[in-house]
Amino acid sequence: MPQHPEPPPRDRAALPPALADVQVVVFDVFGTVVDWHGSIVREMAVRWPQVDGHAFALAWRAGYQPAMERVRNGSRPWTVLDTLHREVLDEILPRFGLGHLDEAERAHLNRVWHRLDAWPDSAAGLQRLRQRLVVGALSNGNIGLLTRMAKHAGLPWDCVLSAEVFHAYKPLPAAYLGVARVLDVPPAAVLLAAAHHDDLAAARACGLRTAYIERSFEYGVAQPKDVSPQPGNDLHCHDIAALAAALGC
Amino acid sequence: MPQHPEPPPRDRAALPPALADVQVVVFDVFGTVVDWHGSIVREMAVRWPQVDGHAFALAWRAGYQPAMERVRNGSRPWTVLDTLHREVLDEILPRFGLGHLDEAERAHLNRVWHRLDAWPDSAAGLQRLRQRLVVGALSNGNIGLLTRMAKHAGLPWDCVLSAEVFHAYKPLPAAYLGVARVLDVPPAAVLLAAAHHDDLAAARACGLRTAYIERSFEYGVAQPKDVSPQPGNDLHCHDIAALAAALGC
Repeated sequence: MPQHPEPPPRDRAALPPALADVQVVVFDVFGTVVDWHGSIVREMAVRWPQVDGHAFALAWRAGYQPAMERVRNGSRPWTVLDTLHREVLDEILPRFGLGHLDEAERAHLNRVWHRLDAWPDSAAGLQRLRQRLVVGALSNGNIGLLTRMAKHAGLPWDCVLSAEVFHAYKPLPAAYLGVARVLDVPPAAVLLAAAHHDDLAAARACGLRTAYIERSFEYGVAQPKDVSPQPGNDLHCHDIAALAAALGC
Repeated sequence: MPQHPEPPPRDRAALPPALADVQVVVFDVFGTVVDWHGSIVREMAVRWPQVDGHAFALAWRAGYQPAMERVRNGSRPWTVLDTLHREVLDEILPRFGLGHLDEAERAHLNRVWHRLDAWPDSAAGLQRLRQRLVVGALSNGNIGLLTRMAKHAGLPWDCVLSAEVFHAYKPLPAAYLGVARVLDVPPAAVLLAAAHHDDLAAARACGLRTAYIERSFEYGVAQPKDVSPQPGNDLHCHDIAALAAALGC
């Protein structure tokens, strides 16, 4: 990963009004703050080196949106992500020659999502933002998952806001508007930072400010992601340190 | 406040099974972790020194249980504690000669609950417990209140669980059982630490472990509280450092 020098903070007095009014920064987590792909590849390499960890991680993650969509569209009742992850896992294991895994092995592997490693800049970047702003997670991960991940990865959240709190998976408006409601601020005082344009677009439609975070290697170094800017976001940042600098922190 | 030396940790191998199985420690917050009485008295002494801060703090707090009870018994829909605090405040202000306070002053004063100071041992005790256990708040305070209080008082929570997450004010069972559910552990793996026997008794009825924390001066030094042990609790501790020691942390 290329080294970027720690960017100096922008003068807060010179912030554009849209950013000067931000009091709360919430982060998408999977891919934006933690490296789900690399973490799963590493876990598989240690425990089942015969499996193609890259393909396994992508297959598992591919089941994520369809599983949540059934909850979002009401065709199944509220179900936490740990359960959805487990259902997708049970479905893909035979395809990777792991259909023989017993209950304890499956339960432990499913908790790899609680053990994801942060991107190298994440913990320090969050800590820098926290000095001036309220910094939270806004993730489709459930509360237990996010709590254990924060301990594992050393993420210094002020608060962990989960789809589980609102019973609404992103990109449903109730998730974004829920942040403003529980923290008692206007939507425009909340900024969502994410590595995914669809998440940011949905937040913007609810009146939140948005910052795109480049995570070129979300799907691994072999499959770099297009991280070029798209219109509409208030900020486009290389990483969380750059976001902190852009917000005058 | 008398000085107690930092107690050394108990040998974890020697813990009784009921305590050895504890994975999560959740804390009552008002009175147990933070000094609501002293904080309100200090705020009043600075801003309105002519008011009896002790009587004012007690009057405000006296409205707390009746206001929540109307939500608990279903006679009013879910309402966050910030709103209940504000209603009680509006009711008591004239009695203390402060009926003239304008909206901005009332809103700011109501947020004194977001600015409560911790007891001197709280932050270090929580940090010590966090090394081995998941440490959370379980408070009737709303998420925004608890988030801002944690920043103000430097409370290193792993997670902030609020009655707002469960839409159930303690001592309703849904609050205690909600902790076990969202963290995916059996109730007996959760210990509630509180300075109030009724809170602990309700947790115990749900299968949680319990620790009483002595807070003799919850209502001020002029009105010391009876902190003698009552049967039924797994632990009776002078403070959070003693709780950490008793749990082998």
